[in-house]
Amino acid sequence: MNKYAIGIDFGTESARTVLVDLSNGSEVAAAVYTYQDGVIDEWLPGSGVRLEPDWALQNPADYVRAVTQTVPQVLAASELSPDDVIGIGIDFTACTMLPTKADGTPLCNIPELRNNPHAWVKLWKHHAAQPEANRINDLALQRQEPWLARYGGKISSEWFFPKALQILDEAPEIYEAADRLIEAADWMVWQLTGVETRNSCTAGYKAIWSKREGFPSPDFFAALHPRMRNIVAEKMSETIAPLGARAGGLTRQMAEATGLRAGTAVAVANVDAHVAVPAATVTKPGTMVAIMGTSTCHMVLGAEQRIVPGMCGVVEDGIIPGLFGYEAGQSCVGDHFAWFVENCVPGEYQREAERDGVNLHQTLEARAAQLRPGESGLLALDWWNGNRSVLVDVDLTGLLIGATLATKPEEIYRALIEATAYGTRVIVETFERSGVAVDEFVAAGGLPERNKLLMQIYADVLGREIKVVATQQAGALGSAMHGAVAAGASAGGYDRIEDAALTMARLKDETFMPIPEHQAVYDKLYDEYVTLHDYFGRGENDVMKRLKRIKAGVRS
Amino acid sequence: MNKYAIGIDFGTESARTVLVDLSNGSEVAAAVYTYQDGVIDEWLPGSGVRLEPDWALQNPADYVRAVTQTVPQVLAASELSPDDVIGIGIDFTACTMLPTKADGTPLCNIPELRNNPHAWVKLWKHHAAQPEANRINDLALQRQEPWLARYGGKISSEWFFPKALQILDEAPEIYEAADRLIEAADWMVWQLTGVETRNSCTAGYKAIWSKREGFPSPDFFAALHPRMRNIVAEKMSETIAPLGARAGGLTRQMAEATGLRAGTAVAVANVDAHVAVPAATVTKPGTMVAIMGTSTCHMVLGAEQRIVPGMCGVVEDGIIPGLFGYEAGQSCVGDHFAWFVENCVPGEYQREAERDGVNLHQTLEARAAQLRPGESGLLALDWWNGNRSVLVDVDLTGLLIGATLATKPEEIYRALIEATAYGTRVIVETFERSGVAVDEFVAAGGLPERNKLLMQIYADVLGREIKVVATQQAGALGSAMHGAVAAGASAGGYDRIEDAALTMARLKDETFMPIPEHQAVYDKLYDEYVTLHDYFGRGENDVMKRLKRIKAGVRS
Repeated sequence: MNKYAIGIDFGTESARTVLVDLSNGSEVAAAVYTYQDGVIDEWLPGSGVRLEPDWALQNPADYVRAVTQTVPQVLAASELSPDDVIGIGIDFTACTMLPTKADGTPLCNIPELRNNPHAWVKLWKHHAAQPEANRINDLALQRQEPWLARYGGKISSEWFFPKALQILDEAPEIYEAADRLIEAADWMVWQLTGVETRNSCTAGYKAIWSKREGFPSPDFFAALHPRMRNIVAEKMSETIAPLGARAGGLTRQMAEATGLRAGTAVAVANVDAHVAVPAATVTKPGTMVAIMGTSTCHMVLGAEQRIVPGMCGVVEDGIIPGLFGYEAGQSCVGDHFAWFVENCVPGEYQREAERDGVNLHQTLEARAAQLRPGESGLLALDWWNGNRSVLVDVDLTGLLIGATLATKPEEIYRALIEATAYGTRVIVETFERSGVAVDEFVAAGGLPERNKLLMQIYADVLGREIKVVATQQAGALGSAMHGAVAAGASAGGYDRIEDAALTMARLKDETFMPIPEHQAVYDKLYDEYVTLHDYFGRGENDVMKRLKRIKAGVRS
Repeated sequence: MNKYAIGIDFGTESARTVLVDLSNGSEVAAAVYTYQDGVIDEWLPGSGVRLEPDWALQNPADYVRAVTQTVPQVLAASELSPDDVIGIGIDFTACTMLPTKADGTPLCNIPELRNNPHAWVKLWKHHAAQPEANRINDLALQRQEPWLARYGGKISSEWFFPKALQILDEAPEIYEAADRLIEAADWMVWQLTGVETRNSCTAGYKAIWSKREGFPSPDFFAALHPRMRNIVAEKMSETIAPLGARAGGLTRQMAEATGLRAGTAVAVANVDAHVAVPAATVTKPGTMVAIMGTSTCHMVLGAEQRIVPGMCGVVEDGIIPGLFGYEAGQSCVGDHFAWFVENCVPGEYQREAERDGVNLHQTLEARAAQLRPGESGLLALDWWNGNRSVLVDVDLTGLLIGATLATKPEEIYRALIEATAYGTRVIVETFERSGVAVDEFVAAGGLPERNKLLMQIYADVLGREIKVVATQQAGALGSAMHGAVAAGASAGGYDRIEDAALTMARLKDETFMPIPEHQAVYDKLYDEYVTLHDYFGRGENDVMKRLKRIKAGVRS
């Protein structure tokens, strides 16, 4: 008798729930819940409070509604008995965090705090804590904090402590009222189980925690802000649960709301990109998984800790227990092409797309696919949204070189795709030079499915076969796999995520092989890319930053 | 009793004729003739002969038809007596040249040669003689020819001897059959007067002639090709006529065809850009005239010969008798904006333009005018069509830096305008550093009339007042002025072009003054432009050329 698990992938605009057959990983049923309050970036719901620029909040009630609406739907669609569903796993955007009371009540649910924006969930893309991130980075550099190197030398404004410090800076009364500061991922598991846990993935990648060294020291926090000295002890936890561990059993209340059995095993939470790694069949060192969407996350496992320049982070047990999980990223991939399509493509192409009944991306891809590598004479630096790895510099900007009066839109489009491929190659080579092997490459996410030209270009530029994950829901599948591990083999699940991956994760049969003639041309173009990358990115000519400063001066 | 002169401006697609009042320069009547065969770049007219890429020919019969059709029209429209029209002047694109028999018969009019493309007029933008230009430049450099410095170190494939050498290389029978190789400008004057003359402007700027040193030596030509040793003596002329000189009187036949008096003074020919200088009121050193259209020509006069790096040429008597005429150029100005509008502007903007009943340039200009200098964070190198001055390098290409996901089309449009302004400033500063004063700046051509934002940006970037020529037909007016000088004061004209300019040439009352706050920002942006200009243009990073080589390798 087959057993099943549920995976819930909490995204930026919606949550997707899948019910998965543990015997083969197939998706039996799926449902999507679009958050009622979505991304809150203008007005606080139900109040006249206007948000500042760069703010992005969410309503935690949306997460609960996502569970209580989608789980009954997949159960009904599958026609399974709740007894056959043995585990639940969830993954989340991160760092997406909120302040709560000791019993888990979000501060934004308390009437007298509801009109304070700091009482709400700060979404991963809340970017208003940049001043706090700068202070943390400056102080860490000054104090030569040992953890800084594990994060490529710089932490992001999106992470946990900048967000926490922003609350303390701007709303000390909220900071005081918060018994807990917690990742939404862990908070949601708390709601499901009644047990507060903290997972090693968000702790490691977003809250500067490591298995061997713990969190930054109270002295460090005190130097940042006296009230912050004991933030970990007071409002967080030193106890960090490994991925795949059973956080607890589903509460009676949640069982009633979802139709599942009370006590169903719930795994500790995970992060959307990281949970996709075992769903992409990868549980051992040597294979990079690239989750390619609006941006790209690059994940690879290693048996040892290496310091890789400009990586986002290395976390022991951060992806797969027993291994070091390395993460790097490109901050602008699908976003790049979307910007181009929206801003730079003439009406003639739009009419062609309409006539052919396709979207503009498809029209451009079809035209760009007619071009040979190097034929356009164009080269771009893919920094329209800064550079996340390996330069870790949000102030870098996009560059296009080689334009002539004969340059066509599809040539620029192709050059942008190529630029993101060169950017990936820089990341791969940086890992390899730092002693982290990258022998294979697996692509996941929405882009590989939608754009075959892009995949071929990546194969040609990287000079490697590119494999593609079979499912487009690698996040939700990975969560279900972790749910199965939380349940354990004795209950019909798995004891180890490696075992779950062997059975449940699959790659497509079709792979993308490099074409030697293309590779030869792209090797030359990549050399040019690297020269420009270093010239503009490593301080020889900081024109991009000076242009940004001039821009800021004019706008202020 | 007022006297009048006719000026005929032979352009690329059409010729424009104006009849001008000599007492004040006002345009009494005008007519346009569009060439029947236009630019011949695909098939030879009346034959199945297909042209190679980069070819551009014309039919000399079109030039004659332009005269016989437009002159009667302006005469009729003005209701003047032919006796009141005392002079004719013409200006032409250059180098636009053709092979003829000793009596002036174009070889393409000889039935047995008509199907050979080399028998036709090679238009200025015939670019198929690049290999010949390369050979000439290589040889000149190797022999350290003294004339090379007068042309910024390099001559263009558009000029006279590359075109002549291409005929000899590819069609020696045409070279042999040609008793004359002649500028179309001089050929047309020959048709009007029956007298073969050669003007100092095309000779100096396009055929490497100087008043003091004459043409390159027979030894040089012989080293280029043995058959070419005596090209000047055999097929050209050592006698070069000064601008404004009377080439001859209108022939009886042409008088009958046009309705003018036989014997009406005809001035020696001139070049469209150069003839516009006195029409822009400029007859003395210190004022740069920029003829701004698809490309821009920069002309300035000097009392002495200076060697200016990367200028197109310096020719004694080349613009105004008694002075050295300096020319520099930007190969892509209006063409730049046209490329952008055609290839990079989304349908939404096209619909906005249609709704407002304007063209896309106007929509973009209106939006770009809302931006402050530096606000976009963008910077471009205006090399979409190479760099004519001061780098003299056709293999340079366009660059855009500073793009973000928030970059809008009007920001790029404005950055392209700014880039051409920076390019002009480089030229101005190079002249000044080389000892050629540029105290004032006058704009002529189509662009100043059409785009006020562009003029303001030029004023802001150059930090100078920009004056604008009153007429949009500076070429034809300048030609009429030269016609009046050919007639002379005794006939009711002028003895010197300076006198004609004083009375006939005018500037607009409206000028463009630099705005100090804009200037301050543009000074910073210009510094960045110069750094990139030198980095990519002076050999530190030849990526643009390598991309072009890769492109050529892929396409071959």
